[in-house]
Amino acid sequence: MTDGIRVIPVPGLPEVRPGDDLAGMVADACATAIGLEEGDVVVVTQKVVSKAEGRLVEVDPATGHKPLVESESVRILRRRGDLVIAETRHGLVCANAGVDLSNVEEGWAALLPEDPDRSARRLRDALVHRFGVDVAVVVSDTFGRPWRRGVTDVAIGVAGLRPVVDLRGTEDALGRELQVTEVAVADEVAAAAELVMGKSSGIAVAVVRELEPDWLGSGSVSEDLVRRPDEDLFR
Amino acid sequence: MTDGIRVIPVPGLPEVRPGDDLAGMVADACATAIGLEEGDVVVVTQKVVSKAEGRLVEVDPATGHKPLVESESVRILRRRGDLVIAETRHGLVCANAGVDLSNVEEGWAALLPEDPDRSARRLRDALVHRFGVDVAVVVSDTFGRPWRRGVTDVAIGVAGLRPVVDLRGTEDALGRELQVTEVAVADEVAAAAELVMGKSSGIAVAVVRELEPDWLGSGSVSEDLVRRPDEDLFR
Repeated sequence: MTDGIRVIPVPGLPEVRPGDDLAGMVADACATAIGLEEGDVVVVTQKVVSKAEGRLVEVDPATGHKPLVESESVRILRRRGDLVIAETRHGLVCANAGVDLSNVEEGWAALLPEDPDRSARRLRDALVHRFGVDVAVVVSDTFGRPWRRGVTDVAIGVAGLRPVVDLRGTEDALGRELQVTEVAVADEVAAAAELVMGKSSGIAVAVVRELEPDWLGSGSVSEDLVRRPDEDLFR
Repeated sequence: MTDGIRVIPVPGLPEVRPGDDLAGMVADACATAIGLEEGDVVVVTQKVVSKAEGRLVEVDPATGHKPLVESESVRILRRRGDLVIAETRHGLVCANAGVDLSNVEEGWAALLPEDPDRSARRLRDALVHRFGVDVAVVVSDTFGRPWRRGVTDVAIGVAGLRPVVDLRGTEDALGRELQVTEVAVADEVAAAAELVMGKSSGIAVAVVRELEPDWLGSGSVSEDLVRRPDEDLFR
C-alpha cells in the first residue's frame, strides 16, 4: 500500500529565452526547491520547452495567427469562428494546432516543440546526469476536450515513464478479468501537476513524487498515447 | 506559494451492497486511514456509489448488455463492433453509456448513478456532519477519449468544489490578458486520485489534500462540466 503521491510546484524558473539551457534551469530550480529523488516525475510545460527550443514566430499583423495554424496542421477536424480544432504532425489534436499567443510577447506566437518526446528525453538525460537518480520527464500542454467544458493538462512528450499502463487481463477485485483498462498514466500525471501550477503564477515545473514505481519505464507519447486514425472513431 | 498537494489512497472500504450506508462506510475508512481535514477533497469511484444506490441490473444472457446500453443512452455518437459511444441523460459521453460489467458479479451490470451530483452532495453532507470540517466530494468514473489512447478518470458528480475554474481575463505572467483558461479542476482532481487507486487493488476512495482553497465552492458537473450540445463541435 502506498502512502500516496505528492505533487509539488517548483518555483524559481527564470524567464526562458531561445537557446537557453532549459535542463540546467529546471535542474537549478528543482535543486533549490526540493531536490530530486529516485522515481520523481518532473513535469515541464510545453511553453517553456518551446521557448528554449526557439519555437517562437512573429505573427504577421496583416494576417494574424491563422496562417501559422494552417502550417502547423496536417488535418483540420472542425472550424467555428476563430476556433480551429486541428491535428498536428505529432498526431496531437488540439485547438489552433498548438499555436499559442498567451504567455509570449505581444506579436509573437509559440509553436509546439518539433518533437516533444525528444524534448522530454533530453531533459531527462540532463536531470539524471545532474542528480544521479533515475527520474522521468513529462512535457505537458493544456488541451480542451469534446463534450466537456474546461481544459486539462495532458502529456505531449514523455521520457522514463510508461505513458499508458495496460491493465487488461489483470483480475479485478472480484477475480473477473478486466476488459479494457489501459490507463493513460502520463495524462493523469500532467493533470495532477496542473493543479499546482496555476495559469497565472508562472509556475512551469512540478514534481510528482512517489508514483507507482512499476510505471516507470520506456515509451513515448507519439507511439503510446496518440491514437492511430484507424483506431479512432472521431476522425 | 503552496507546498503542493497530496493524493492519498483510502483503503479499508468493505464490499458495498445495495442499500448500504456508503457515506458511513467512506467516513469510517477515512477516519481509520487519515482522518479528514478542512478543505480535503474526497474522491469516490462511481462503482461503489452505483452499488450503494442499487444501480445494479441483471444482464439477460440471451441479449447481453446491449439493451441496457440503449436504454441508458439518449444519443448514440458512434458504433464499432461491440463498442458504443453514447451520451447519457446526464449529458456524459462515454463507452456503453456507462453500463459496466467489471467489478460487479457475473451476470450483473452497474449503471451510472441516477444523479451523480446529488450522490456527491449526499456524501459531502454526511462527511461534513461526521467530521465537522468543510470537505468536498468528487464522484469519479473512468472514460476513454477521442484521439488519445488510454482511459483517464473524470468527475461525473461534484459537491463543494468548483468544477471549472474560470481564469479568463486573469493576466498571464507577462501581464497580457489570457484568452481561454477555464480549467476543469474537478476532472484533474479525479485524474490525480486515479493515480493512487489502481484498477485491481480495490481502492475506491482517495483524498486530495491541500488543494487551492479558492477552488472550493459550489457547482455541479451537470451545470458546469457538461458541454452543451450547441457549444460542442463533436456532437
